[in-house]
Amino acid sequence: MYSLDIDRALKAKKISVGDRVGVTKDGFTVEGMLLPRIELSDTSSLVIKQDNGYNVGIRYGKGVEIEFLGKGKAVSHRHAVVEAQHDSKKPLVSIMGAGGTIASRVEYDTGAVFPEFSPGDLLKSFPQLKGIANVKGRELFRLFSEDMTPEHWKIIAKESAREIESGADGVVLMHGTDTMNYTAAALSFMLQSLPAPVVVVGAQRSSDRGSSDNLMNLVCATNAAAHSDVAEVSVCMHATSNDDYCYLHQGNKVRKMHTSRRDAFRSINTLPYAKLWFSDAKVEYLRSDYSKRSGRKIRLDDKMNPDVGLIQIHPGIKPELIEASKKFFDGVVLSGTGLGHVPTNPSNEKFAQSVVPAVRSLVDSGVPVVMAPQTIYGRLDLNVYSAGRLLKQAGVIGDGADWLPETALVKLMWVLGHTKDMDKVREMMSTNFAGELSKDIEPSSFLV
Amino acid sequence: MYSLDIDRALKAKKISVGDRVGVTKDGFTVEGMLLPRIELSDTSSLVIKQDNGYNVGIRYGKGVEIEFLGKGKAVSHRHAVVEAQHDSKKPLVSIMGAGGTIASRVEYDTGAVFPEFSPGDLLKSFPQLKGIANVKGRELFRLFSEDMTPEHWKIIAKESAREIESGADGVVLMHGTDTMNYTAAALSFMLQSLPAPVVVVGAQRSSDRGSSDNLMNLVCATNAAAHSDVAEVSVCMHATSNDDYCYLHQGNKVRKMHTSRRDAFRSINTLPYAKLWFSDAKVEYLRSDYSKRSGRKIRLDDKMNPDVGLIQIHPGIKPELIEASKKFFDGVVLSGTGLGHVPTNPSNEKFAQSVVPAVRSLVDSGVPVVMAPQTIYGRLDLNVYSAGRLLKQAGVIGDGADWLPETALVKLMWVLGHTKDMDKVREMMSTNFAGELSKDIEPSSFLV
Repeated sequence: MYSLDIDRALKAKKISVGDRVGVTKDGFTVEGMLLPRIELSDTSSLVIKQDNGYNVGIRYGKGVEIEFLGKGKAVSHRHAVVEAQHDSKKPLVSIMGAGGTIASRVEYDTGAVFPEFSPGDLLKSFPQLKGIANVKGRELFRLFSEDMTPEHWKIIAKESAREIESGADGVVLMHGTDTMNYTAAALSFMLQSLPAPVVVVGAQRSSDRGSSDNLMNLVCATNAAAHSDVAEVSVCMHATSNDDYCYLHQGNKVRKMHTSRRDAFRSINTLPYAKLWFSDAKVEYLRSDYSKRSGRKIRLDDKMNPDVGLIQIHPGIKPELIEASKKFFDGVVLSGTGLGHVPTNPSNEKFAQSVVPAVRSLVDSGVPVVMAPQTIYGRLDLNVYSAGRLLKQAGVIGDGADWLPETALVKLMWVLGHTKDMDKVREMMSTNFAGELSKDIEPSSFLV
Repeated sequence: MYSLDIDRALKAKKISVGDRVGVTKDGFTVEGMLLPRIELSDTSSLVIKQDNGYNVGIRYGKGVEIEFLGKGKAVSHRHAVVEAQHDSKKPLVSIMGAGGTIASRVEYDTGAVFPEFSPGDLLKSFPQLKGIANVKGRELFRLFSEDMTPEHWKIIAKESAREIESGADGVVLMHGTDTMNYTAAALSFMLQSLPAPVVVVGAQRSSDRGSSDNLMNLVCATNAAAHSDVAEVSVCMHATSNDDYCYLHQGNKVRKMHTSRRDAFRSINTLPYAKLWFSDAKVEYLRSDYSKRSGRKIRLDDKMNPDVGLIQIHPGIKPELIEASKKFFDGVVLSGTGLGHVPTNPSNEKFAQSVVPAVRSLVDSGVPVVMAPQTIYGRLDLNVYSAGRLLKQAGVIGDGADWLPETALVKLMWVLGHTKDMDKVREMMSTNFAGELSKDIEPSSFLV
């Protein structure tokens, strides 16, 4: 995962990670093994493991020469599957890496490459896992979560299904926290008829900090994957600012509600499925309305149309921007005000602009428009005020839904992967495929 | 506030609200006084007050004839200022109406027009106000809050300043809840050196419902305007789902967090200034870091550039949309993921698109780009990850800010009303004009 410049230079000299190299800069040459760049924050420095055991980073740029000195053993950081030793009394959990803070541990003091995805190294780094399950490790990619795309979601869905089909009793996905809820929502639609838990987990603080949450979150997530009865896509993250327990959230009804707190993730319009204690393997259920483990066959349904936009309504919004969005998107989610509103300018004031004609124009062009609440919490109602009724007349989808804007976005991508027919889109959006549409909102779930 | 069709028909016949008219539909004619349409949800029906005292609504459309029968006394629903009788022991509160659920009370059983803005009718509808203050009433406009624009904010700011300069001890603004926090944030920038409270208040449930919150919210807001020492722009709304007390929130650090709950409004990254009890006039302060009442002179600074957009970053976001936004906007706020991130595609994958070049293109064209957190809570940090550093290099403004996306939007409109110079924009955005930038975030303010 080096920068493009470095990648090009390495390719030109047929140098691979693991090879012995010499790097010359400003007259000094450093010799050693070329390490992969696993610190995501700076990909423009070469990292060399010297013979004395120390690693050195050399910023790449003009005047830096790389020389091939000898072949290393082949290293691939993708799909490096290693089976765990089997203890027949324990369930098998497949831990997959997608990137993010939880997976960005820098192990400069060992020669091992991406050590944390072999079972031995997972157990060395997280010895608590030993008591919970047999583990196996694979890395799918190593991305910041803001760089995840619907294409990555498809890979994750496919690999999760493969793990479960080949015998895993649960899957844990290490993922960056920024877009974790978009990914979890996507998996909830793509993994239909799920027979076992798929638990998405991340960390808000990296492993080199005393307050890192990576160990506790991973332990709780692995416990949920191994022992909980929640055969759903979920997100497992710190529940409080202490190291006491995690919440297991419904994957399409959870949101990162703080930039940095460890307890940033919150269930929206529902309670978490369960509490997972750090100190104790017991699963404390908070709900009972989830699919239980079973022998049913997983159905992978990973068709997605990534060309869907999410636009927030606000004072000063330009109808022209919404009109223009149909050039870029096959579907649009509006994050409306209140119960699901946009400016309508009923009094025809000169400085106010109605957004309704732009919405109608999109729908008439075959671009579905879906409403979601910018309040985050609560349920849409397009019948109370005239703005809502005008939007319904214009063909807006979503009346009565209590979905998050992010979940509405992901669901519309998934639905548009299946059909372009407006009536069918409307019907599928209104169908509760993965618990994304609640019949009742539990009042005690507000801001908990 | 009738529909445009009705307005046209009335103008053609020189009929004004208050005139005696005959309306014929399907062979039946109704005679009486033409009432103004004060129910906002249906503006396409004529409302006639008959001589028997009953009102009737007649849906306007093809085949409906309106006939002028006699002149009524002139009625204006704008700027209908009526002074309250003076009780020298009580402070004077000016209650202004901007619209919304709180002001949309339908009084079909009286002939009075817009009764709730004369002091007598305010006191009749809300007798509890009598014990709190002398009140005077004015209606500025009667708009759904989703139709409020920066031009309306300027009128509200000017009229608030005028009320305070002419002796009001506090101002209460009745406003729809959908965009109340945008308006309150705008007032916080436009009303500099405020010597007295300006309290924005609304209702989540209309007055015809038993659970209406309009009385308690108005009583608490009037109490805050009359008796609190908080000489700031604030929002006063139900704090709990009981009718016990309201919170007085900082106007630029508050957000509607639920589509329908009465306790939907929540302080973000700070505590409310105070609790206001329904049953008791005491103000219970929760903070002390606000401007106190004083004799200083208010400074109205209402320059605003309304051409600013707010764009949420999400997986699948198109750089082209951000690029295109500069055609519509003079400034753009990005609601980024996590600590303030956008896709950067460091690994150059074919299906991932970096947003950074589009951001750079906007900044290079003189369109400032400001970051805000889509997590709602927390503080931006553009130094932790490479995405943040790339954005800083591209010229993004907002590192370290803990502002809401809505507040960042409004502030950028206000700043661009003063200057187009990028350095000056950057300097003003980084200046704490109205408490919008917190030095420290009170940890106990998360999700309270």
